[in-house]
Amino acid sequence: MQLSEIYNQVGPWLDPKGPRSEVVITSRIRLARNIVGFTFLSQASAAQQNELLQFVHEKIMETELRDGIWFVNMEDISPLERQMLTERHLISKQLAEEEGPRGVMLMQDESLAMMVNEEDHLRIQAMSSGLQLQRLYERISRVDDLLESRMEFAFSPQYGYLTACPTNVGTGIRVSVMLHLPALKMTGQMEKVFRAARDLHVAVRGFYGEGSEPIGDLFQISNQTTLGKTEEGIIEELIRQAIEPVIEYELRARKKILEERLPALDDKIYRALGVLDNARLISSEETMYLLSYLRLGVHMERIKTISLETINRLFFFTQPGHLQHLNRKKLDTQQRDQARADFIRRELHASRN
Amino acid sequence: MQLSEIYNQVGPWLDPKGPRSEVVITSRIRLARNIVGFTFLSQASAAQQNELLQFVHEKIMETELRDGIWFVNMEDISPLERQMLTERHLISKQLAEEEGPRGVMLMQDESLAMMVNEEDHLRIQAMSSGLQLQRLYERISRVDDLLESRMEFAFSPQYGYLTACPTNVGTGIRVSVMLHLPALKMTGQMEKVFRAARDLHVAVRGFYGEGSEPIGDLFQISNQTTLGKTEEGIIEELIRQAIEPVIEYELRARKKILEERLPALDDKIYRALGVLDNARLISSEETMYLLSYLRLGVHMERIKTISLETINRLFFFTQPGHLQHLNRKKLDTQQRDQARADFIRRELHASRN
Repeated sequence: MQLSEIYNQVGPWLDPKGPRSEVVITSRIRLARNIVGFTFLSQASAAQQNELLQFVHEKIMETELRDGIWFVNMEDISPLERQMLTERHLISKQLAEEEGPRGVMLMQDESLAMMVNEEDHLRIQAMSSGLQLQRLYERISRVDDLLESRMEFAFSPQYGYLTACPTNVGTGIRVSVMLHLPALKMTGQMEKVFRAARDLHVAVRGFYGEGSEPIGDLFQISNQTTLGKTEEGIIEELIRQAIEPVIEYELRARKKILEERLPALDDKIYRALGVLDNARLISSEETMYLLSYLRLGVHMERIKTISLETINRLFFFTQPGHLQHLNRKKLDTQQRDQARADFIRRELHASRN
Repeated sequence: MQLSEIYNQVGPWLDPKGPRSEVVITSRIRLARNIVGFTFLSQASAAQQNELLQFVHEKIMETELRDGIWFVNMEDISPLERQMLTERHLISKQLAEEEGPRGVMLMQDESLAMMVNEEDHLRIQAMSSGLQLQRLYERISRVDDLLESRMEFAFSPQYGYLTACPTNVGTGIRVSVMLHLPALKMTGQMEKVFRAARDLHVAVRGFYGEGSEPIGDLFQISNQTTLGKTEEGIIEELIRQAIEPVIEYELRARKKILEERLPALDDKIYRALGVLDNARLISSEETMYLLSYLRLGVHMERIKTISLETINRLFFFTQPGHLQHLNRKKLDTQQRDQARADFIRRELHASRN
């Protein structure tokens, strides 16, 4: 399999069969690590960064991870490919857009990505569909151990793992889930969620992570503290205090809407379908927003002619990078809006035949 | 034929075969008249108003107009019926909503309406589809002459016909056309039209006349001066100075859109269709707004599956009064929005089979 082949498939983290996938789209955990013997990145020269990139690559290839892994040097691929990797949530915007020697090692099933020379020397990320943080943690711990057997991570007995940014010191862990919360949004309860999150020191963010706006009623919930607790404690607490209650609220809000506001719900769902079926120009944001209602409609069994697989396909391939890849050429904003609308109409039509 | 039967048909003034109907929906002319021997309405008692109502009725029944005319006493019909007559533009909002003895004599083909005890003793109105003001003026003059042979109109050799409001003194004529100007709206040129109209002493108003907002890109153009010119002069000038140039601008704007903004045009047209085909709740305003785009789409040959007849049917029967009549019960706003959406989906579906 070639790296280029994955661009033609929907990211496995969108698999609609993940646990609790009626609300939880995806789970992810990342560990921030720095390697003893190498200068921290804020001080490192390009030569030192390059040396580190080669070092990590070599060491990983000495482990059992070598099977089914791609090494992707950011300087070897096009801006469009970097954009697609960002859209697939395999690399960060920062890794895609900054300069200098940097890369990512990707498991071919897109369940694991190890970025080198992002903010820290190494960022290990594991992801899956639905709510499966415990399983992910077991996975990423094994990877962490494998790597630690080949290199020494900067670690202080007092503080734990040392990281470029003090907010990551300690466990270096970030645990996050992407939640689909259209009913909380529709009933105006998101403010309540944001307030509760603040009190719990939990971050609620948009679809593309830090600093991004929520799009299509997708919200990312993640831990903010990494210090003074074990990894298992952080995960358990995040699930119990934040994720489970929010899932519960969302499901209760959906039930209430079904009971009390069915025409308003159907109106939103079917208008979304009507616009997607007919628009000739459509932005990426509007697409996500409308697909969000279709997704809700499918989960609430208000719409039966469209499958989650179709929605996920549309969700994925209407992103600017993937859309240009599909069209095999660079497109400006208006051309993208037109190509996106054409693609959506075609896919929806095909999915019903 | 019964009065109640007309509520089930589309108003003939919406006939899509009228001259220049790609832009001009309807033409209308009204004459304001007061009758010598009766107190002006601002001073008249209910008894006097009643006497006038009977007098006018009797006199009209002595003329050839008696054939095919209905006499409708406003106090004898329900508020819903009054609302429907307003929606059919056969009576004014004022006649529908005020109290006291008042009525209208209606030609059964809806081409002529004579309101008694509105602002003036008598308001004679003639209407037709498309642009046919000269023909209408010939018609209404004949009616005016017929009435004048049976009663004396208040007339001053110096000022002309005397009316309740000084703006109508003189000829007492108001000439108006309802224009569909979506391309001027889309290209942001309506301000230019409003400015030109002000310079020409021509009024530009919304769909329901004085004080109403433009809905669905429908604008009413009418003369503002009634004094110091002949009726023919007023009509000729309004056509030459205002109506023809605006039609010309609109057609030019449509051509420009076809040449330069086809995807944006198709996007608006097809989104409108998508929403109408799918909404479960829809307001009267949004309906008109969306039908306006469908109408444009048909005239510009961008849409071939929908006929003007269907659009006109939807336009007519989605108005609040007609909608409740169709549903045979009083409906609150939310119920109307739901019934309207259901009706539109049903009609669009039926029209394509």
